[in-house]
Amino acid sequence: MLDDLREKACRANLDLVRHGLVVLTFGNASACDRKAGIMAIKPSGLAHESLRPEDMVLVDLDGRVVEGRLRPSSDAPAHLALYRAFDGVGGVCHVHSPAATAFAQAGRPLPCLGTTQADYFPGPVPVTRLLRKREVEADYERNTGRVIVERFAGRPPLEMPAALVAGHGPFTWGRTAAEAVIHALVLEFAARTALNTIRLNPGVRPLPAYLLRKHFERKHGPKAYYGQSKEKP
Amino acid sequence: MLDDLREKACRANLDLVRHGLVVLTFGNASACDRKAGIMAIKPSGLAHESLRPEDMVLVDLDGRVVEGRLRPSSDAPAHLALYRAFDGVGGVCHVHSPAATAFAQAGRPLPCLGTTQADYFPGPVPVTRLLRKREVEADYERNTGRVIVERFAGRPPLEMPAALVAGHGPFTWGRTAAEAVIHALVLEFAARTALNTIRLNPGVRPLPAYLLRKHFERKHGPKAYYGQSKEKP
Amino acid sequence: MLDDLREKACRANLDLVRHGLVVLTFGNASACDRKAGIMAIKPSGLAHESLRPEDMVLVDLDGRVVEGRLRPSSDAPAHLALYRAFDGVGGVCHVHSPAATAFAQAGRPLPCLGTTQADYFPGPVPVTRLLRKREVEADYERNTGRVIVERFAGRPPLEMPAALVAGHGPFTWGRTAAEAVIHALVLEFAARTALNTIRLNPGVRPLPAYLLRKHFERKHGPKAYYGQSKEKP
Amino acid sequence: MLDDLREKACRANLDLVRHGLVVLTFGNASACDRKAGIMAIKPSGLAHESLRPEDMVLVDLDGRVVEGRLRPSSDAPAHLALYRAFDGVGGVCHVHSPAATAFAQAGRPLPCLGTTQADYFPGPVPVTRLLRKREVEADYERNTGRVIVERFAGRPPLEMPAALVAGHGPFTWGRTAAEAVIHALVLEFAARTALNTIRLNPGVRPLPAYLLRKHFERKHGPKAYYGQSKEKP
Repeated sequence: MLDDLREKACRANLDLVRHGLVVLTFGNASACDRKAGIMAIKPSGLAHESLRPEDMVLVDLDGRVVEGRLRPSSDAPAHLALYRAFDGVGGVCHVHSPAATAFAQAGRPLPCLGTTQADYFPGPVPVTRLLRKREVEADYERNTGRVIVERFAGRPPLEMPAALVAGHGPFTWGRTAAEAVIHALVLEFAARTALNTIRLNPGVRPLPAYLLRKHFERKHGPKAYYGQSKEKP
Repeated sequence: MLDDLREKACRANLDLVRHGLVVLTFGNASACDRKAGIMAIKPSGLAHESLRPEDMVLVDLDGRVVEGRLRPSSDAPAHLALYRAFDGVGGVCHVHSPAATAFAQAGRPLPCLGTTQADYFPGPVPVTRLLRKREVEADYERNTGRVIVERFAGRPPLEMPAALVAGHGPFTWGRTAAEAVIHALVLEFAARTALNTIRLNPGVRPLPAYLLRKHFERKHGPKAYYGQSKEKP
Repeated sequence: MLDDLREKACRANLDLVRHGLVVLTFGNASACDRKAGIMAIKPSGLAHESLRPEDMVLVDLDGRVVEGRLRPSSDAPAHLALYRAFDGVGGVCHVHSPAATAFAQAGRPLPCLGTTQADYFPGPVPVTRLLRKREVEADYERNTGRVIVERFAGRPPLEMPAALVAGHGPFTWGRTAAEAVIHALVLEFAARTALNTIRLNPGVRPLPAYLLRKHFERKHGPKAYYGQSKEKP
Repeated sequence: MLDDLREKACRANLDLVRHGLVVLTFGNASACDRKAGIMAIKPSGLAHESLRPEDMVLVDLDGRVVEGRLRPSSDAPAHLALYRAFDGVGGVCHVHSPAATAFAQAGRPLPCLGTTQADYFPGPVPVTRLLRKREVEADYERNTGRVIVERFAGRPPLEMPAALVAGHGPFTWGRTAAEAVIHALVLEFAARTALNTIRLNPGVRPLPAYLLRKHFERKHGPKAYYGQSKEKP
């Protein structure tokens, strides 16, 4: 079972590179087995290209390394803070893709301006506050996760599977690590298109609520009709 | 004959990916045999890379699946609305390429600022109105096609083979599916260059009418002299 | 000798694609043998990828096809106008690369903001006037070349080997077709960087004259010291 | 030993191309053996793709060619000025990547807006003054290095391993040539993201000092915890 978890975490890290979302070592993905209470995450500072499943580090939800010869990603405490607070999340990604990171650095939520974005993010993608001095000086990475959780304030995390950490960059999540990667890719796509849109129309208004709801529900609601039904391949 | 139609629709969907116009499953192309009254379209939610001709779904112009194991693209009713209203159209594409989609999201028509654009789109590419609440809640995808048809108001569709659906993205069409793909590619190219142009000169004026007419007619008019004459390869 | 000319023209057209300067058939290159008074140019409307030297069309400087089964590029009269007016020019390119074309569409000369640009273009790259109605209705492509020549007004063409045709796009030239391709590539690079620079500093001033002169002369002046001396490989 | 130096310089020049930081011959890297007092640098004007270690030119710190059949890069005197003034620097790069060069051309320092940037550049990347007329007319390339050194005014160079030369482009450095290449890559990444950020929020404020310090120190300080400890692979 944990071999499978390592395999999933490794593939997610490789997919971040394949989709052009990561430069050098600026990004990481993890997968969580919630029954076992174990997260598999990229080791710190290693190049993505050469990652193998056996390099993944296994950590329990309190942050203790359970297995692995290497140090976990320095962002591991942020991933853990999300798994502890967000029920049903099985994968987390953190990247610095250039358009989504620009919204994070600008301290602006990413407005929902288009229907494709609404299929995944039905409303503005929230931006956190900046961390305070004492939150940076001690437990910095854990506090990075905490400001995301604080910003959600109990909102169901799978309804809005991303947040922008102010002055830092995006975190995305999903039921699986593969889904978290897709969310990172769609977020960058939406942010890039929004940058162009805002340039053309600085006062552009977000999609009306009835359109947001329609798009999210045709894909994820109880009467979803996007994609193939489960029985088919 | 219908094998040929499936082959054309499949190739058009693969070409959208090859030209970088589609991310994930965000786009689709169809081909229509107008004598048979049948459209071949991409199945819903499947990755483009692995599409084969036999995966294409055959649908009649009233939207009934005639052949195919998979569900048609959720955008099929929009494609059908265009085939029903637009005589002579044999192919339709819908993509979310980042520059053309920005004009759609900004609710701005794409002005004709350059001669290459004029070869294909002799004037501004129109933008539709936003759909109303009740048009979204019932028959959403069909109404998406209808607002395009409404916007054309009887104008010959092959003279301006594209429209931008507000808050959504571009649709393009042509005599064949291959031509619709070319139009999607030229539209993105023109929109990208227009974004740069508007940045340099926010008050830029569109090309004068005599230049628009010249470019369209040297390529498509009765005395066209662009390209090779029909007898040559 | 003319096989060699066809070979050079073909390679230049292929290089335009390799450098990402041409989408579809939106661009063309020619090579001129000035002693023979013959230009080899891309045939009209053919895809670049499959071009072979034997597809090139040979045209004399009055525009008569001397050899070749295909029609020459519809832009051939513009190329010829440049060869007739500009002594020493042995190659011409016309592309619609997105940043340089934006300056042409915006009707703005490309200012010289950086040293690399100054190595090739020691001052602003000029923009022509728009063609008048009667210049478009008859002899359009030839007049496209003529407004460039008019804009140069006797200035030595090899000192500034490019012009932006208003509402259209860049033409570049050089002693050889290969040099014209390099100039098209450097022009796009400079235009792209200038777009970013103007965004950061809308009132940016061009490089001072002493710096322009230095860069041009260290590469092209009588005491040039850039690159290897002629005797070395 | 000097074979090793040539090998390092060659690989750094090839890596600049691989990372997309260099167009044509617009960039160069060098490696310095400080004990031997020798720099290995790219030859002038040669295409990067075909460079081999034996093409590198060996130059002593006074600029005399020690070994090599080819002329050194015309920027060699700028590299040497940096090695002479900056203790501990073993590699230097000069590129014209489009976003970092835009800041140099705009005469604006690159503000530190994000945490990834802070990992490498803990504060604004400085921009030099323009060179004066007499500094350009004689000893131009050496003076290019000198304005960087002047701008640093004794500040430890490895704490801020880059500078933007006004109207020209970025220089980066590091303990090794490989590190200088990484710094050129991160600088372009940071500049590109900053361009997007400034577009979204023209009055964006740089990261607070406590966050800059944290990021730099978790990677480079005495208690660094980013990456793997030295004993591990």
